[in-house]
Amino acid sequence: MYDKNNAFLTLLDIEYPLILGGMAWVGTAKLAAAVSEAGGLGTIGAGGMTPDILRSEIERIRTMTDKRFAVNLMLLNPHIDELVDICLKEGVEVFIFGAGNPGKYIKRVKENHRIIMAVVASETLALRLEREGIDAIIGEGMECGGHIGSLTTMTLIPKLVRTLTIPVVAAGGIATPEQVQASFVLGAKGVQIGTRFIASDECEAHENYKHQIIKSKIRDTVITGGRLGHPARSIKTKFTRKLGKLEYESPEEVERLLMGSLRKAFQTGNEEDSVFMAGQSVGLIDEIKPVKDIIEELFSTEKIQDEYKDTVVESAKE
Amino acid sequence: MYDKNNAFLTLLDIEYPLILGGMAWVGTAKLAAAVSEAGGLGTIGAGGMTPDILRSEIERIRTMTDKRFAVNLMLLNPHIDELVDICLKEGVEVFIFGAGNPGKYIKRVKENHRIIMAVVASETLALRLEREGIDAIIGEGMECGGHIGSLTTMTLIPKLVRTLTIPVVAAGGIATPEQVQASFVLGAKGVQIGTRFIASDECEAHENYKHQIIKSKIRDTVITGGRLGHPARSIKTKFTRKLGKLEYESPEEVERLLMGSLRKAFQTGNEEDSVFMAGQSVGLIDEIKPVKDIIEELFSTEKIQDEYKDTVVESAKE
Repeated sequence: MYDKNNAFLTLLDIEYPLILGGMAWVGTAKLAAAVSEAGGLGTIGAGGMTPDILRSEIERIRTMTDKRFAVNLMLLNPHIDELVDICLKEGVEVFIFGAGNPGKYIKRVKENHRIIMAVVASETLALRLEREGIDAIIGEGMECGGHIGSLTTMTLIPKLVRTLTIPVVAAGGIATPEQVQASFVLGAKGVQIGTRFIASDECEAHENYKHQIIKSKIRDTVITGGRLGHPARSIKTKFTRKLGKLEYESPEEVERLLMGSLRKAFQTGNEEDSVFMAGQSVGLIDEIKPVKDIIEELFSTEKIQDEYKDTVVESAKE
Repeated sequence: MYDKNNAFLTLLDIEYPLILGGMAWVGTAKLAAAVSEAGGLGTIGAGGMTPDILRSEIERIRTMTDKRFAVNLMLLNPHIDELVDICLKEGVEVFIFGAGNPGKYIKRVKENHRIIMAVVASETLALRLEREGIDAIIGEGMECGGHIGSLTTMTLIPKLVRTLTIPVVAAGGIATPEQVQASFVLGAKGVQIGTRFIASDECEAHENYKHQIIKSKIRDTVITGGRLGHPARSIKTKFTRKLGKLEYESPEEVERLLMGSLRKAFQTGNEEDSVFMAGQSVGLIDEIKPVKDIIEELFSTEKIQDEYKDTVVESAKE
């Protein structure tokens, strides 16, 4: 169903130009395997992982799929060098770096004939990484869940496409087929989607987290941590309100409260002390479904094509 | 060149589904006339106007074009009731309300057989206004210039399209043909564009303001006023840095400094005391051009169509 001549698909050897967003805790082997099995690129989110956990998740995904998968490596992880080593040693084929400048890893990853991409929030870093030999750039708009920049998907993607020659992947707020199509029109060669897959059968997060995703309305996310220098988007709860207030009074107390709050969202889903990271796309998600169904729906372009043709394609022929 | 069967075009009686964003000071009769003459819907921005000025701008635009134009009425304007009366009396055909809930004006405007639209930042207000009989909704993402909400164009527009039955117009960050096309793919029936037209020959703003637009990079906008309850996006300058700091220390001083700062941007372009309102689209704008050329470029869809066809339309046929 999808154009096989797309260089980006060839690069990644996948059926759909879709990457699972790198999600700490939520991005387990099981969820990543389900995405890869359904034709996308599943991503193990190594954000909060220790070396042992990453090693065992890589082992686990290999029992679940023969297809290619990626590991998302968060540069702020204190074990980052060791995690990179593990990925190289264990034969991980796609490295996706986030939360900083992965310049120092490019040479080594490329020398080992692996694919390397980075999630960026601005064109300045993207351009530098292109010069240093990165394979593709994932541009993430601030409507995304988790750590955010300031640019939006609608402005960042066309800017990256105009600035770079390597493939650009659109991320941030995407959860519907229309948005997938719009990303291609903006010049992206693929999409990276996180939040949508939290509300999937294969996601191993606590049911409470999944229900937070489907019950939340589009304005139910909030940005916290801005005053601490690392703004992140999550679902509005009593706990985030508390954090928001404390940010101005006692940043140390906020840091203490945040500790373990992502793990709690994943393991217990307890609103009192969990941070449910999620993008504005929560307002466009209202059903927990199998990963395969989600992906097929995201790429079910016919209906949109028809509408689009009526208003634009036909008229362009005149 | 454009599909004449689009109900939205028929409603507005225009050639291109393009509305000039309502810009205080910048949205003069001359700029609005140029947009209407070129086939879009020009908009007089009555945001900061007194009744006398609005009356004279309406007189002036009629000496410049016979085509339809709109007046953007900012609900926070202290003269708002009188401004609405003037528009009714002077035969303005399209009323666009912004910065609040224009519910109380819908009945009167419709009884007078005029078209009424509202700029909104959330689907809740949009749905209420649809029930009250508004003709169309302009959804504005937070990448826009001036006063902003929290949702982005990429998430707000598909949400509005799914929620409403009346036409949705996409606004916020749009300045390129790809973005115009993407807006249609997201389900919008038109686009509203402001910032792009500041860098036009016909814009009567000071040359310094125009140069701020074309020289600014995509990350050169900043949000100020959040702590005062009315966040707005403008170009980063020494003056906005000063405002940003003062916001936490002396809100009253900020209010005092802001007074007249839009007028100054328009009249003098002096960086020391002007606020240059602009969207993130500044990063996609690098030339001052005639309005007609800007509009023709925005709707020059062939190139994009071709690329889009390669990757999506063709594949959808399989």
